Amino acid sequence: MTRTEISTLGEFGLIRRLTEKFEKKNPSTLYGVGDDAAVLRYPDRQVLLTTDLLLEGVHFDLIYVPIKHLGYKAAVVNFSDIYAMNGRPKQLTVSIGLSKRFSIEDMEEFYAGVRIACEEHGVDLVGGDTSASLTGLCISISCVGEGEQGKTVYRNGAKPNDLICVSGNLGAAYMGLQLLEREKSVFAGNADIQPDFEGKEYLLERQLRPQARRDIVEQLAAKGIVPTAMMDVSDGLSSELIHICTQSSTGCRVYEDRIPVDYQTAVMAEEFNMNLITAALNGGEDYELLFTLPLELHDLAETLDDVRIIGHICPPEMGMFLITRGDGQEFPLKAQGWNSLKE
Amino acid sequence: MTRTEISTLGEFGLIRRLTEKFEKKNPSTLYGVGDDAAVLRYPDRQVLLTTDLLLEGVHFDLIYVPIKHLGYKAAVVNFSDIYAMNGRPKQLTVSIGLSKRFSIEDMEEFYAGVRIACEEHGVDLVGGDTSASLTGLCISISCVGEGEQGKTVYRNGAKPNDLICVSGNLGAAYMGLQLLEREKSVFAGNADIQPDFEGKEYLLERQLRPQARRDIVEQLAAKGIVPTAMMDVSDGLSSELIHICTQSSTGCRVYEDRIPVDYQTAVMAEEFNMNLITAALNGGEDYELLFTLPLELHDLAETLDDVRIIGHICPPEMGMFLITRGDGQEFPLKAQGWNSLKE
Repeated sequence: MTRTEISTLGEFGLIRRLTEKFEKKNPSTLYGVGDDAAVLRYPDRQVLLTTDLLLEGVHFDLIYVPIKHLGYKAAVVNFSDIYAMNGRPKQLTVSIGLSKRFSIEDMEEFYAGVRIACEEHGVDLVGGDTSASLTGLCISISCVGEGEQGKTVYRNGAKPNDLICVSGNLGAAYMGLQLLEREKSVFAGNADIQPDFEGKEYLLERQLRPQARRDIVEQLAAKGIVPTAMMDVSDGLSSELIHICTQSSTGCRVYEDRIPVDYQTAVMAEEFNMNLITAALNGGEDYELLFTLPLELHDLAETLDDVRIIGHICPPEMGMFLITRGDGQEFPLKAQGWNSLKE
Repeated sequence: MTRTEISTLGEFGLIRRLTEKFEKKNPSTLYGVGDDAAVLRYPDRQVLLTTDLLLEGVHFDLIYVPIKHLGYKAAVVNFSDIYAMNGRPKQLTVSIGLSKRFSIEDMEEFYAGVRIACEEHGVDLVGGDTSASLTGLCISISCVGEGEQGKTVYRNGAKPNDLICVSGNLGAAYMGLQLLEREKSVFAGNADIQPDFEGKEYLLERQLRPQARRDIVEQLAAKGIVPTAMMDVSDGLSSELIHICTQSSTGCRVYEDRIPVDYQTAVMAEEFNMNLITAALNGGEDYELLFTLPLELHDLAETLDDVRIIGHICPPEMGMFLITRGDGQEFPLKAQGWNSLKE
């Protein structure tokens, strides 16, 4: 593969090369890349703003993450934050700090991934910053979305008796990560051994190419449902439930046998000799939507495609508990979610 | 000084501790820190969005930059980008990646600097991200500002015969950096020697505590002036003039004897045996505003406080030149501005 040094283009040449393939899609984008700031217009909508910092060695490992997937994922996890407010992502800025290890071709791959994500979600690239880094790759993404007045959903609106719902299934991205980490050590030990991913493609895809659940937000809108609280599951279900309950001043009960898990996740947990429900509760990066609905919407909630009711909100004094399958024991929820600042 | 490890608070505790002292100032801020995204409202204004990535060892050196000043500067350089669009900064997000070298007290100092900048400019902190970094300090800031419909100023609107104006003076921040770098080596050689900054405080301040020129934007508004093009001088006058001319499809003439330079900058250039005008043209980080005005506003332009007319815009075929003092020779402008991606 050709390798062109970034120094041959310089900062502005590089930015031009990386951004020229992006097409403007939204009328709210008045002016994108190329000035001191992007210019947007949101006369009738709320403006949602989210930002994420992704650092090599902390948030991703380029030994097994293809750089194009990294670009895709970096964009999509920001879109997920906008959907989690019941909004629609519209504009994105991408800043990168890169060491000399990276070539122009690497950056083109990264931006190709960003572009696919932007095309899938109808988002415009409107700015960013490119600079040298003394160490690894450093990615900062900000995303602007639009929210409809009165329909923006916060974490703090859950009420006792509300149903707790979650989209898709949980724990698969975490299992994908375990799998990649295991095969990484296989690689390190003996280059002749090919990594064994057969039958586990879904887990890898969940880790490497997560989906932001635009479809769920659209389904809710089509059925006229506005959740009382919502967030995306990035640090694990347990941790996110605690966020919603703490910010809403409530407790909750979730039922182990209601927590959606894919069979590949279950097979993998068995193979790794891990507790499946722990993986589903505490494994991060699922990017599913967790939301609460008033009890009277129960029948409507059951018609939602790829959504499961997993429990309900309680008064705060009842605490936050998981009810186990079979014997119905209560275990307190713990935020064992991924936290890069822990020791 | 007390040193508290960041791991004692965890990510959410740290964010709470760092952001709780910030007060909301703007009605356009509906919801700030604490959810998946901030929620803003801009019914009658354009939304301006800018972002910057600052990496330790590339953009700053903590050996001589106090971390509080770094917080201040990181915020202010983003405000400067919004002013450069003729807008007003309103919301800020701050993301940091930090290694174990940093304590909670360090982060509090950093945020204290951010807070001073936000208070001076009436900006709300509305979000961010805090994570571990394997190496140094990594700072990503995004800023949202408001622009008045029809009064947002781009780089591409300059017309032949327009006057070229610049605020303040140029080259001082660059000289401040040279001075800090020199004293850094003095420090490294012999710890008993105190750095010699006497009479050079202004240069240090320009480097460590740059000002975003809100006053200039307010002056322009008060006099009913909308520049045809504007940007802030972050990479050096020469480089920025080339941006404006290239994007506006024009040429330009600037006059050496019109370029504003502070006497401390001149003294320092002499001491360092450097060409003063090179420092003023190519030294970065001045964060002054460079703008163009129609010729018929000449008399009004002369009444602008702390603004100098330094030349004029020409047709593109006339090229971009500096006219030297005395002999009136023409030298082509070169973008020797600071570019972290160059070899």
